[in-house]
Amino acid sequence: MIVSMKTGATKEEIDTVVEKVHSYGWDVQMNVGTEKTVIAVLGSNTGQVSTDIFAVLSGVDTVTRIMKPYKLASREVKAQDSLVSINGIEIGGKRIVVMAGPCAVESEEQLMEAAEVVKDAGASILRGGAFKPRTSPFSFQGLEKKGLELLRKVKEKYGLPVVTEIVDARDVSMVGDAADILQVGSRNMQNFTLLTAIGKSKRPVVLKRGFSCTVTEWLTAADYLLAEGNTGVILCERGIRTFEDSVRFSLDIASIPVIKQSSHLPVIVDPSHAAGHYSLVPSIAKAAIAAGADGLLIEVHPKPEEALVDGLQSLTPANFARLMKELRLVAESVGRYIQ
Amino acid sequence: MIVSMKTGATKEEIDTVVEKVHSYGWDVQMNVGTEKTVIAVLGSNTGQVSTDIFAVLSGVDTVTRIMKPYKLASREVKAQDSLVSINGIEIGGKRIVVMAGPCAVESEEQLMEAAEVVKDAGASILRGGAFKPRTSPFSFQGLEKKGLELLRKVKEKYGLPVVTEIVDARDVSMVGDAADILQVGSRNMQNFTLLTAIGKSKRPVVLKRGFSCTVTEWLTAADYLLAEGNTGVILCERGIRTFEDSVRFSLDIASIPVIKQSSHLPVIVDPSHAAGHYSLVPSIAKAAIAAGADGLLIEVHPKPEEALVDGLQSLTPANFARLMKELRLVAESVGRYIQ
Amino acid sequence: MIVSMKTGATKEEIDTVVEKVHSYGWDVQMNVGTEKTVIAVLGSNTGQVSTDIFAVLSGVDTVTRIMKPYKLASREVKAQDSLVSINGIEIGGKRIVVMAGPCAVESEEQLMEAAEVVKDAGASILRGGAFKPRTSPFSFQGLEKKGLELLRKVKEKYGLPVVTEIVDARDVSMVGDAADILQVGSRNMQNFTLLTAIGKSKRPVVLKRGFSCTVTEWLTAADYLLAEGNTGVILCERGIRTFEDSVRFSLDIASIPVIKQSSHLPVIVDPSHAAGHYSLVPSIAKAAIAAGADGLLIEVHPKPEEALVDGLQSLTPANFARLMKELRLVAESVGRYIQ
Amino acid sequence: MIVSMKTGATKEEIDTVVEKVHSYGWDVQMNVGTEKTVIAVLGSNTGQVSTDIFAVLSGVDTVTRIMKPYKLASREVKAQDSLVSINGIEIGGKRIVVMAGPCAVESEEQLMEAAEVVKDAGASILRGGAFKPRTSPFSFQGLEKKGLELLRKVKEKYGLPVVTEIVDARDVSMVGDAADILQVGSRNMQNFTLLTAIGKSKRPVVLKRGFSCTVTEWLTAADYLLAEGNTGVILCERGIRTFEDSVRFSLDIASIPVIKQSSHLPVIVDPSHAAGHYSLVPSIAKAAIAAGADGLLIEVHPKPEEALVDGLQSLTPANFARLMKELRLVAESVGRYIQ
Repeated sequence: MIVSMKTGATKEEIDTVVEKVHSYGWDVQMNVGTEKTVIAVLGSNTGQVSTDIFAVLSGVDTVTRIMKPYKLASREVKAQDSLVSINGIEIGGKRIVVMAGPCAVESEEQLMEAAEVVKDAGASILRGGAFKPRTSPFSFQGLEKKGLELLRKVKEKYGLPVVTEIVDARDVSMVGDAADILQVGSRNMQNFTLLTAIGKSKRPVVLKRGFSCTVTEWLTAADYLLAEGNTGVILCERGIRTFEDSVRFSLDIASIPVIKQSSHLPVIVDPSHAAGHYSLVPSIAKAAIAAGADGLLIEVHPKPEEALVDGLQSLTPANFARLMKELRLVAESVGRYIQ
Repeated sequence: MIVSMKTGATKEEIDTVVEKVHSYGWDVQMNVGTEKTVIAVLGSNTGQVSTDIFAVLSGVDTVTRIMKPYKLASREVKAQDSLVSINGIEIGGKRIVVMAGPCAVESEEQLMEAAEVVKDAGASILRGGAFKPRTSPFSFQGLEKKGLELLRKVKEKYGLPVVTEIVDARDVSMVGDAADILQVGSRNMQNFTLLTAIGKSKRPVVLKRGFSCTVTEWLTAADYLLAEGNTGVILCERGIRTFEDSVRFSLDIASIPVIKQSSHLPVIVDPSHAAGHYSLVPSIAKAAIAAGADGLLIEVHPKPEEALVDGLQSLTPANFARLMKELRLVAESVGRYIQ
Repeated sequence: MIVSMKTGATKEEIDTVVEKVHSYGWDVQMNVGTEKTVIAVLGSNTGQVSTDIFAVLSGVDTVTRIMKPYKLASREVKAQDSLVSINGIEIGGKRIVVMAGPCAVESEEQLMEAAEVVKDAGASILRGGAFKPRTSPFSFQGLEKKGLELLRKVKEKYGLPVVTEIVDARDVSMVGDAADILQVGSRNMQNFTLLTAIGKSKRPVVLKRGFSCTVTEWLTAADYLLAEGNTGVILCERGIRTFEDSVRFSLDIASIPVIKQSSHLPVIVDPSHAAGHYSLVPSIAKAAIAAGADGLLIEVHPKPEEALVDGLQSLTPANFARLMKELRLVAESVGRYIQ
Repeated sequence: MIVSMKTGATKEEIDTVVEKVHSYGWDVQMNVGTEKTVIAVLGSNTGQVSTDIFAVLSGVDTVTRIMKPYKLASREVKAQDSLVSINGIEIGGKRIVVMAGPCAVESEEQLMEAAEVVKDAGASILRGGAFKPRTSPFSFQGLEKKGLELLRKVKEKYGLPVVTEIVDARDVSMVGDAADILQVGSRNMQNFTLLTAIGKSKRPVVLKRGFSCTVTEWLTAADYLLAEGNTGVILCERGIRTFEDSVRFSLDIASIPVIKQSSHLPVIVDPSHAAGHYSLVPSIAKAAIAAGADGLLIEVHPKPEEALVDGLQSLTPANFARLMKELRLVAESVGRYIQ
């Protein structure tokens, strides 16, 4: 951290800052300029401490963080790419992994049909929500336990690993026993109670980006999972909230190379929730692969016009099959492949 | 809802929309223009249903919501202002209620001193966090159970009601027994698991606005509390995330009159978390009262320079006492009072 | 500026940075830590130079600006509040100045009626647009030259100084001869061609904040006016673009104390364009005064329902008169007055 | 437009709305529900009129726009893709056009060297700014007229068409005579004076998106150019302002398919200004092509570490050459090519 003193700060004020630095066990180096004194705080864990501890002191002008607040998710701690393996499917390597399926599990028939079409088209993991965090309490909240049973059934029948959302820290075992990957939704990215419980469970997890969280906050949230020893963390960009109103959320395409530089964790993209409209999904999906994403999470519904949740952003089976062909070409053009 | 068909939509496409409307038990009125057909969907609960159910149908151009998605929080359901009473202190009436105290409970000494100074200056409720949802797992997370005990102690000694944050649905009874008001933090505004648990408990609750949630989403989240029969809901504006970087969050001052028009719920303002710097707190606090807020939630620390959390945005006892005097004058200028 | 080198940066890389610093005539102070080298760049005009000049060098990790990019608008250059005097009306002192009138000049009758009602209610400056920068080329663009003539007429009759918008650098003399204050609209805040022309003219100017510009960028834009020797600069906060959709723009109430700390320039508030709806204007206007604004710019129309532009956000004469009474009380509560 | 009356609106209030509709020559269709009356306004040019004209009337609850505010830029007016031809280079067809070069023209040597390297690597148009709209008046503002002369020289020598920024409506002929394409910068997207002057000149123009303007506002600004009969309009996405701080601007990748659906105009992408850092440019550039962009505008500097402007986001010649090879593969994967 860099503590810049106000013009005219007294010796006493400067000494107080220095004492505070020492009280944390850190070192200090002083820059006494003609106008301003600037104090560099040197220590390996300054990133985890609030700048406030200095900013609040008398005579201090600004405090600037040099170290990042996240630690375990950073490339500085682990230089090599992390691979997350799900039933032999490796996420984070050359292979691009497509997870697809309906937003919500609605019925056995719907889920089975969805599994069949996404498997045929080349998806390797099935998505489907049993617990749906809905904006209004009067909306359909998912089939809950019955939905989990259907996920177990479909897994057995089609041999597809399953990813499903978890919304309650008390449900980690129950949901984790039915699914291969737990999904933390955008609205729960900073639900630290939930993250800690999933961290302890060591189960693979897709951590969706909070729709108004910076990449730095996202990686710091990942630290909650990693700090409990869970190494199966997959990040998922799904669009951020901006002023633009032609889409539900603005997909932050630059977050992919930013994460690849800053973190060792694999990152996938959900084009469906960002777009909010099926007709925009293919362009965004192709862009994600071209930008370096390790996978996709796409909503596919056998009959979008009958979907209980998010039908407008779901691809039909035919559209999904066509997209998968196009994605294969884009993946190859950047030196990767879809199995 | 208004369903606008594309130019050239077929009779079949229009009929499908009409059938879907009827399947929900709603009525339809048709506007057959020279270029476009527009279908008005008439029903009292169309606000709680996604526009997707029509937007996904063939031939549909746009679907526009006329009804708001929230219901129980709206003035249409309850025209009169709701009053929330805490130990005889009424929130939502002429009296402006100031809740003040440290961000985090740090020690018995700190809490007792804080209680004394805020009570002396005229605050009527004490704030103090025992559970702190921190961005990084390596930051101080609060004294937890020990913090709750201290809150119980200080309440007894000073006779001040207490508001404290809750972060885990499993803790409703434990935290609720120590505090008079539960506080749901910004990052948990859409933690529906937590909201439902608090709703069932019927305990008074301060629902902070998610820093990237619209007023509409905020009132819809309040519906989760109200739907369980909890009538003690107090909204709290605490700033939204914008591009402006001179403050931590941009206080949305217009949200106060917007809520007063749309909802019967009382609304208070937290100037401390919005500002992020104590020197900005007085201006924002006065603006909030002038704009019609029913109360304030202000961070005060006996020694901000030693605070473990958010010291920079905490007022000193002297600054808080001065602000309270100024606030009294502003309150009177808009026909209200601080006791 | 603080240049933080990457872990493992070579001596050569560090030397290149130091040379670059010296090439600008600045001094350097080195912090050689165990992990990282941090270089402090010391010079009085580092704020006006891009951080890129160092960030682009090999081995550099991050570059952090300590000095602000604006200069003439800052309190460091001029500690005392600047007062702008318009026909004896001082803006920036204890008196709060209200500028009011229609969004657009529509006809002689409309303008005269507006002038009469705003003067009667206590406004001291008349607003009215002759040139209207409209989003669509097919919308009403203002009466242009004819509008300027009407402004000249109304000034003579009512003795009210006039503020009006300017959109073209070629019109500075023409608009300046008809009006007492030039207004630069939000969309032109970074039209540096226009700012330079107005700067050279030395005419008083209201500089509206760009709806997506930071306070820092706003003050840096003011530097364009000040750099040409124009000292009659009045800032105007009018709302910023955010995700919130219940208002047209979110009024950034905290910008007022932020500017009062950082700059010597007076700042007024336009609640009408922020709100977008007349019913929200009074709350925002009162909040602005309570927060420390030096004046208000309010839209008033004799018959809002017949307005050609922005009728929805215009107050009726009766509502404006009522608001002025309320504003007087709020102004007094913070130690100021409206004449 | 759809005018939704308040519950309990009187017959008189409804009649006033209907009269207003008729006064504009439009038709009306009434939906008299049990709770609310909804009035559909039918007319082909309702998109160009503000919703305020109805919203301001007594008894009106909300007014919803069905038609888009832009007209000439829309696919409804022109279904086929527009092609813009520059010296035989067609923008908007199967060929992807890469414009590259330095941010600012700095010297003859720099410009010549840049032209040579970008031409060799396969760029077909040279970019270079002679007039630079800088945030601070104390920053380098470009070589201005001398810069235009250098552009003329380099064009002759290398036979590369040139695109350069224009910032003043008075300079259309001067800049237009030196360059093949005029560029309107992000800060001038709503400088309607400048747009009108360029529109009248009929010269090809790259219209950069305002960094806080919606796609709808962008297309409506394009209407200013098209309304004057200028058909050579090329849109350029360059990132929008959001809360994310790891990049300068967040590239809105979804804007590409959104524009392709809504408009017939070609759209290119500037990854350099969005990223703000050269290391992020390749990923964003590849994503843009995959998403369907018609071209790219990329900053390349012979020696980025000596650049006077934006060196950090400029590619070196070697990096640019490598990127061009990668882009060719991505272009082919989506059925397009780079010559």
